[in-house]
Amino acid sequence: MKQQKPSKFSVFETELMKTLIEKAKQFQGFTHPNPLVAAAIYHKNEVISWGVHRMKGGVHAEVDAIQGANDNTDGASLMVTLEPCTHTGSTPPCVSAIIKAGIKEVIFAIEDPCNLVRQKSAKTVLEEHGIQVRSGLLEKEAYHLNHDYMYFHQNKRPFIHLKAGMSLDGKIALSSGESCYITNELSRKKVHEMRSKTVGIVIGSGTLVSDNPKLTVRHGYLENKQVPPTIVVIGNKKIDDCHDYAIFESGYRSILVTSNEHNDHPSFSDVWVIPKTTNKIIDWTLFFQKCYENNMYSLLIEGGQKTFSHFLEGGIVNKCSFFIAPKLFGQADAKSVVELTRVDTLKDIFTLKNITIEQYDDDTCITGFCSLKENDTLINNNKGE
Amino acid sequence: MKQQKPSKFSVFETELMKTLIEKAKQFQGFTHPNPLVAAAIYHKNEVISWGVHRMKGGVHAEVDAIQGANDNTDGASLMVTLEPCTHTGSTPPCVSAIIKAGIKEVIFAIEDPCNLVRQKSAKTVLEEHGIQVRSGLLEKEAYHLNHDYMYFHQNKRPFIHLKAGMSLDGKIALSSGESCYITNELSRKKVHEMRSKTVGIVIGSGTLVSDNPKLTVRHGYLENKQVPPTIVVIGNKKIDDCHDYAIFESGYRSILVTSNEHNDHPSFSDVWVIPKTTNKIIDWTLFFQKCYENNMYSLLIEGGQKTFSHFLEGGIVNKCSFFIAPKLFGQADAKSVVELTRVDTLKDIFTLKNITIEQYDDDTCITGFCSLKENDTLINNNKGE
Repeated sequence: MKQQKPSKFSVFETELMKTLIEKAKQFQGFTHPNPLVAAAIYHKNEVISWGVHRMKGGVHAEVDAIQGANDNTDGASLMVTLEPCTHTGSTPPCVSAIIKAGIKEVIFAIEDPCNLVRQKSAKTVLEEHGIQVRSGLLEKEAYHLNHDYMYFHQNKRPFIHLKAGMSLDGKIALSSGESCYITNELSRKKVHEMRSKTVGIVIGSGTLVSDNPKLTVRHGYLENKQVPPTIVVIGNKKIDDCHDYAIFESGYRSILVTSNEHNDHPSFSDVWVIPKTTNKIIDWTLFFQKCYENNMYSLLIEGGQKTFSHFLEGGIVNKCSFFIAPKLFGQADAKSVVELTRVDTLKDIFTLKNITIEQYDDDTCITGFCSLKENDTLINNNKGE
Repeated sequence: MKQQKPSKFSVFETELMKTLIEKAKQFQGFTHPNPLVAAAIYHKNEVISWGVHRMKGGVHAEVDAIQGANDNTDGASLMVTLEPCTHTGSTPPCVSAIIKAGIKEVIFAIEDPCNLVRQKSAKTVLEEHGIQVRSGLLEKEAYHLNHDYMYFHQNKRPFIHLKAGMSLDGKIALSSGESCYITNELSRKKVHEMRSKTVGIVIGSGTLVSDNPKLTVRHGYLENKQVPPTIVVIGNKKIDDCHDYAIFESGYRSILVTSNEHNDHPSFSDVWVIPKTTNKIIDWTLFFQKCYENNMYSLLIEGGQKTFSHFLEGGIVNKCSFFIAPKLFGQADAKSVVELTRVDTLKDIFTLKNITIEQYDDDTCITGFCSLKENDTLINNNKGE
């Protein structure tokens, strides 16, 4: 990711790239496991056609733009938010289509970190065919557009976002277990938006059994998007295999993650048996491998206390969002959002960085990044959102 | 507080009142026990002179404006943010000065709820002398300007603002007692600003003994302002009368509030002996009487857990501000910001209304109003801040 000097790009080119990033963003939640990409064919500061990648298996943005140009591509330029692919996946490589169309110049924002693509860079292939290539225009914004996809391919692990709804005093349930609707409707709607943008939703056995949530995408965020599978991380616990949990009702994919190979429930689509290690519910490295194999480039951790605590103490959470209702539970034995075992002095406590705050009616959402080395790129790239 | 129709006031008059409210605001923290007031003498849309009340014992805003007009007051108009006084206090009544100056018309924003003044309304006195009087211009904004003074005289009790600094999970100290600097420098600076605007700072015996705070106004907010006295509410507890607490070092007023008449400490300026009632640390009605006698129209409750809880469970807190540091303590036995005894179901929990949020670097401040009947006027008047 070498940032080229901005002077290499004209005002027209910069504005066009901004527009492309906005066009790509409209398909958030639709393109998994592919990234969001938009492209344009233009000639002498005039756009001939636009292209966008709409869903997995659909044409790539570059090909969409070329097709839209109705053969007016010879000698034209192509701009795209991500390095064009050089490999054959669901569709033939975009570089071939670009060469065939007689494009004379390609500008892309950022290189594609996906291994498949990096076997041979687009720049190399295109330049071998006499096509001029420039890159690095609005690189940060383009990273930002696909930050979870980028993070996933750079680090071979999902981007993990923890989301909790709680009271001002950090409680998620009364001592009686009562917990329904701590946060307000607008906050819950925002959670559905977050779900619509993630690849997998994680809960623990406690949440499955006591809350029995649906974990579907509602409030108008579903439409034709893929519903993220629910991943239930239970470690070596046993869950009731006769119970019909609400997550199965939707018919969407559900994955049981257990350290006990005898654990099962007939309704789960998959069972991942992952051994536990000292102090950890499961071996996170093996869990990441499973996520990588399954192209799960982002996870939303939805609860409850034990799952939040396991993930935080595992040092694997990238980002946290706390939705805070303006309520004080005040009960000494109410359930706290987390219970960490390794805190003795103020130096041990968990600190979030690069805080942003949002208000949803009377609820406040505080979002921050955890101190992970891999988070640095994210934070430097526009807070990685 | 009858709101007159806006059409009764010209654009010039409205803009002039806005300016006066801003001028009055500059003396926040200086005028106690008097309200913030500003005035102007004008003639045919041209301002002749400005006046402002700067400190207790200093001239009132109306007289300041009249003096500044250098005898050009005959036939002129006077505008003032608060109903002029009709009584002799530290200074002679303003209505007399207005009559003597030959003013032909007076516009004021809002009536003065202070009993002394209300024995005879300014409108009555002025009209008896042939002076035309209009009122109600920017009444809400004028209420807002002196919301604690207004609240105090309308309800015969101080406006009580609870302020706490805590972690995301609502903790104020580790189980070891360690608690220093949970919130950041900018949050703490804001607290000094809050102190500079309050009339009294309240802490409990736990905070006095374990934190031993100075509770002075620093960070540039002191200047020539009066430093609010520290009120230590200890109930029937005993505090060490040999210990030189930091609150005494400054030499400012300090008040001990105890239910035990044998309780004392030689360094306190005052001791208020107030009996306790069932479930309450002291009788709040008697406490309010003491505050009223002492013109304490606002209190800032600074801690700790027990004091917060006593005031909240007493149902006497008007407003709460929680400064939240982006940290998770996670300890099950860390000290929570409050511990309330009467919470069994979600219906019993304490809810704040009309939330506003502010960000101080990485800290978030959530401010809201408690559900007290007397808060309704405050909330309707621009959130009462």
